[in-house]
Amino acid sequence: MVDLAPFAVMNVVGLLAFAVAGSLKAADAGLDVFGVAVLGVVTALGGGTTRDILVDRVPASLATTGDMSVALVGVGLAIVLIHMLQGRVRDHPAFLTSDAIGLAAFTATGALVGVEAGVSPFGVVILGTITGVGGGSIADILIGRVPVVLRDDFYATPAVVGGLAFLAAQWVGAPTGIPSGLCAAIVFLVRMAALRYEWRLPRV
Amino acid sequence: MVDLAPFAVMNVVGLLAFAVAGSLKAADAGLDVFGVAVLGVVTALGGGTTRDILVDRVPASLATTGDMSVALVGVGLAIVLIHMLQGRVRDHPAFLTSDAIGLAAFTATGALVGVEAGVSPFGVVILGTITGVGGGSIADILIGRVPVVLRDDFYATPAVVGGLAFLAAQWVGAPTGIPSGLCAAIVFLVRMAALRYEWRLPRV
Amino acid sequence: MVDLAPFAVMNVVGLLAFAVAGSLKAADAGLDVFGVAVLGVVTALGGGTTRDILVDRVPASLATTGDMSVALVGVGLAIVLIHMLQGRVRDHPAFLTSDAIGLAAFTATGALVGVEAGVSPFGVVILGTITGVGGGSIADILIGRVPVVLRDDFYATPAVVGGLAFLAAQWVGAPTGIPSGLCAAIVFLVRMAALRYEWRLPRV
Repeated sequence: MVDLAPFAVMNVVGLLAFAVAGSLKAADAGLDVFGVAVLGVVTALGGGTTRDILVDRVPASLATTGDMSVALVGVGLAIVLIHMLQGRVRDHPAFLTSDAIGLAAFTATGALVGVEAGVSPFGVVILGTITGVGGGSIADILIGRVPVVLRDDFYATPAVVGGLAFLAAQWVGAPTGIPSGLCAAIVFLVRMAALRYEWRLPRV
Repeated sequence: MVDLAPFAVMNVVGLLAFAVAGSLKAADAGLDVFGVAVLGVVTALGGGTTRDILVDRVPASLATTGDMSVALVGVGLAIVLIHMLQGRVRDHPAFLTSDAIGLAAFTATGALVGVEAGVSPFGVVILGTITGVGGGSIADILIGRVPVVLRDDFYATPAVVGGLAFLAAQWVGAPTGIPSGLCAAIVFLVRMAALRYEWRLPRV
Repeated sequence: MVDLAPFAVMNVVGLLAFAVAGSLKAADAGLDVFGVAVLGVVTALGGGTTRDILVDRVPASLATTGDMSVALVGVGLAIVLIHMLQGRVRDHPAFLTSDAIGLAAFTATGALVGVEAGVSPFGVVILGTITGVGGGSIADILIGRVPVVLRDDFYATPAVVGGLAFLAAQWVGAPTGIPSGLCAAIVFLVRMAALRYEWRLPRV
């Protein structure tokens, strides 16, 4: 079994944050309220659904009603926020922060599920990264943008670093909840620092 | 087991209709005959393959030869149609009607499979909707368009309404074939009415 | 079990070739070194991961560390190559040849896995084709291009022909390694001939 408590916390946080981020992205792209709701839900559920397909189980987004309900709450929050924000959303702190929280929380859920599914250490890092970047990438593709994971060096990189931190904490026998909490904290801090200081890798 | 007769009927109708719709979409996008065939097949098989992956089974499109054969018949019909239509296809009734039939029939197959796989009621509606909109969305992404599911409020909405009708019919104990038939009829009628009367939801 | 030796050979060749092809494609699209690495890895792992999901097993890219390691070696080779090539990459023989090698090798892996998974003969050809064209198609979508499989008639066609040759060799009882070797050779030769002689199918 997945260690249930850490997974549940990270899952709810990630669903809410990505539902908000995806909805704001949809509003920025000029979609109407239905498009906002669809893109918010797809962003929230996309990474976890990909994660569950990869480890060969029926996605939680279908098997339960909880994930969809939380995503819809996030969409509701976002619609309020869109009315308050006015104007350009793409680089607004509300978008960038909620997106970073979603990235952090979902990377942790991916690492937790990877360990439980018995994939290789490499696989834990990859599954965490795919889970973290998956929802936003699917949303970007749907609205015809090159996914941020390809445009911004420090979108997948924080997830990889967080996944390694997760493995290290597991390795030293940290108690339940510490590996995933450490992973999420590191992903969030590295992502926000990269945005703040405009970290870039050199061109090839 | 899936209730076989209703599933088989909806599956064949959906495969034919979406193979035609996908082929017409490809011709509209200026693809040559091979691109038309590929996009027709992808549109026909895409939604059902996604559905089967989500409920964790080998897709019927691979396990049997039937689905692919029916899709190729649909492509053949579409090539005849393309020669008869001449000119713009995107808003032609032949395209819009075949697309609505595919949406209706595949939503019903998704709901049937969802019930059989034992997913939640929410999950039945979501799986029906994903199955209905999946093939056309993949086709849109392949030719570089924002999927119609994001551009048109009443593309996913009819599928959601049809999925709810399916659940309601199941709930009251309607005999075999009624829930899926009702679902497909409602999806088709709501979709065609939305096109005819240009239903729109307000912007956020 | 998959016939291990032929699968392992084709898998390593395909991973290296597609990691190079995907990295060159990313450089051509103006991505920086991180984008090059991500697109190289996605191109290398995308087709096989799709293949494994379709036959309902945990992708080798997650379950083992080998595939990712080989893909990263390919990315390293490509970065050296990018510095040597200078300028336009899209139609460079280094790109077209590595892409054709990847297409050939992965089509063979897909056919091998299809036989082992017990899918229909049609399914073997389809799975080979999807595995061959999958990685490049995902990469194209990520950078916002219409996938080559839709733009070029003789991208999926060689894979279909190779898949049929695989089946024929199996049918006559060819010894281990011959069906996959024949398949890969035919895919590669048909693809290169189509590029050299600019084979096209007529418009509809």
